[in-house]
Amino acid sequence: MLVVVNNLRSLYKFEGLGNDFLVTFIDSNNDLPDDISKRVVSLLDRRHGVGADGLIVGFVDESSRLNMRLFNADGSEAEISGNGIRCLAHASRKFAILNDDHFDISTKGGVRSISVLGDPKDTRCEFSVSMGEVSVVGEVFSRSYSFLGVDWMGTVLNVGNPHLVLVPKLESTGSISHSGVSKEIFHNLDIQRYGLDLQGEFDGGINVEWLNLAQIGDTLSDFVDMRVFERGVGVTLACGSGSTASAYLLISQGMVQNPVEVINPGGRVGVFYDEKSGETILNGESNFIGTIETSHEVFSL
Amino acid sequence: MLVVVNNLRSLYKFEGLGNDFLVTFIDSNNDLPDDISKRVVSLLDRRHGVGADGLIVGFVDESSRLNMRLFNADGSEAEISGNGIRCLAHASRKFAILNDDHFDISTKGGVRSISVLGDPKDTRCEFSVSMGEVSVVGEVFSRSYSFLGVDWMGTVLNVGNPHLVLVPKLESTGSISHSGVSKEIFHNLDIQRYGLDLQGEFDGGINVEWLNLAQIGDTLSDFVDMRVFERGVGVTLACGSGSTASAYLLISQGMVQNPVEVINPGGRVGVFYDEKSGETILNGESNFIGTIETSHEVFSL
Repeated sequence: MLVVVNNLRSLYKFEGLGNDFLVTFIDSNNDLPDDISKRVVSLLDRRHGVGADGLIVGFVDESSRLNMRLFNADGSEAEISGNGIRCLAHASRKFAILNDDHFDISTKGGVRSISVLGDPKDTRCEFSVSMGEVSVVGEVFSRSYSFLGVDWMGTVLNVGNPHLVLVPKLESTGSISHSGVSKEIFHNLDIQRYGLDLQGEFDGGINVEWLNLAQIGDTLSDFVDMRVFERGVGVTLACGSGSTASAYLLISQGMVQNPVEVINPGGRVGVFYDEKSGETILNGESNFIGTIETSHEVFSL
Repeated sequence: MLVVVNNLRSLYKFEGLGNDFLVTFIDSNNDLPDDISKRVVSLLDRRHGVGADGLIVGFVDESSRLNMRLFNADGSEAEISGNGIRCLAHASRKFAILNDDHFDISTKGGVRSISVLGDPKDTRCEFSVSMGEVSVVGEVFSRSYSFLGVDWMGTVLNVGNPHLVLVPKLESTGSISHSGVSKEIFHNLDIQRYGLDLQGEFDGGINVEWLNLAQIGDTLSDFVDMRVFERGVGVTLACGSGSTASAYLLISQGMVQNPVEVINPGGRVGVFYDEKSGETILNGESNFIGTIETSHEVFSL
C-alpha cells in the first residue's frame, strides 16, 4: 500500500445519493484541532461557508490503515455514514492517498472493507462496502403503525446505528405475492410529521425507513422503493445504513431477491446479504464535484 | 483601467449578508452557452453540485466596462442583486480583472457605480453601490395591514424591482417619537405565511419588508431592524434592494437619520440618500469563501 498524503490545504467535494461531503486529509489524528466542532459549523454553513452535510477527515495510522473521522454540519461527530465512506474511499484513490482496489477503513463504528468497482480517477465511481452484521433488535413485525389507512409493520434493526423499518401490510396468498401501496400514497406520505411522532417512542431517537414493494405476482422483486427520516436531521435524500437495514430485513424474510436494489429519493444502491459470513454488502456510487481552496481556517497547518 | 481576464475555469465563492454566489469570468457575452439555465441548475444544486444562491458571470465589454449576468438556482436570470453586485466587484478586484477603486457595472437592471471602501485583496471588504433613484409607486402609508394586533402601514416602492415596505403604526406626540413593536413580536412574526398572503394582492408578486424602529425618544434612530420575504424564494437572510427601499422610505419621511444602518438577519448594510442627486447609496460587505475547480461543465472552454 502506497501512502502519499498530499495537498493538505485542499478540500474535495464529493456526494453519494445526494449526501454531500467535504473530504480532506491530515497526517495524523493529532492534527485535529481541539475546537474542530466550532470550525466545522462555520465551514459547513451553506450560506456563510463552503457548505456540505459533513466534513470527512482521513488519515493513515501507524499500521498503514486509512481512518475516517466524520463531523456533521452541527459540529457533532458521527460514527459512520454509508454514503460518506464511499466518498472517502473515492477521494483516497483519486488523489493517490492509497493505490489498492481493496482496503479497510477504520471508523468510530468499526472497520469496513472497501472494494473499488470502477476507475476511481473518474468523476463517478462505484464502490462496495461491507457494512458488517445487521441485527434485529425488536421482534420482527411485532408492531403495526397505521398511516392514511395503510397498516405498516415496524421492525427495529441495528447497523451500528438504530433503524425502524416500516413495511406496508401485505396481501398474502398461497404462493408468495406482495403488493405495495400506490405510488401516490407512498410519495405523498408526510414522513416528516410521522418521523417526528415516531422519534418520541424511542430513547435517543431512531432513523425511520418506509418501504414500498412492487406488484410482482409470483416473482420476488429485485428492487424496493425507500423513503427516510433521519434522527436529528429530518427527511433526507438517502441513507446508506437505512438501505442496508431495509434490504437485510426483506432479503432475510424471503420477500425480495438477493441482491436487491434500494431506490432512495437521491439515487440507487445495491445490497447483498452474504448468508455464509452474515455480512451485508452495500454497493453504490460516489461523485466528485470539485476541489476547493478555502480561506476558512479548518486546520492549523 | 487594466483588463486582465484570468483563470477562466475557476469559480470564486463569495457571500454578502448570507446571500452566496459563485462568480466566474468569461471573455465575452458570446461565451455563454445556449443551455446555461440547465447547467446553472445542476451547478447550483447544493447536494449534487457545488451549490449557491446564484451564479454571477462577469465580462468586460468593448467599452472596457464590467458587465454582470446573474442566474438564480432555478436557472432563471435576475436583473440585479444588491448583495451579489458587491461579490462581483470584490472578485473583479481580488482576482485582477480590474484595478480601479471606482468603476461602473452594467446589469440588466441598469448601470451601477461602485466604490471600493477597503482592501479588496482581503477576505472581507466593504463596497459602496449607487442603487439609482427609488420611486414610491403607491400612496405613502395608504394601506394598513394588521398582524398579531399590530397595525402595519404598507408602501409600495420600486428599486428596479418592486417592494412592499411595512412599518408598524407609530405613536406620535408633539415632537418626533417613534416606538417599534417588541423584539419578541417582531422576531416571532410568521412572515412566511403573511408574505405568501400578500403576494396574492400584487400582479407578478412583490418583495415584502417588515421594519422595526427603535424606541428613541426625541432622537432619530440611526438603525432599523428589517425582515424580508422575497418573491419566488420566501424568507431570506437579507435583501440589498429591500434594505435600500426601506431606508429610502424612512429617511425621506424624516423617521430615521441619514445615513441609516439596516439590520438584516444575515448582516448589516448602510444606506445613504443623496438628496441632491436623488440617488440612494448602499454600503455593505462582501466575503470571499474559496476558489473552486469543478468537474461540472459550466462553460465550454
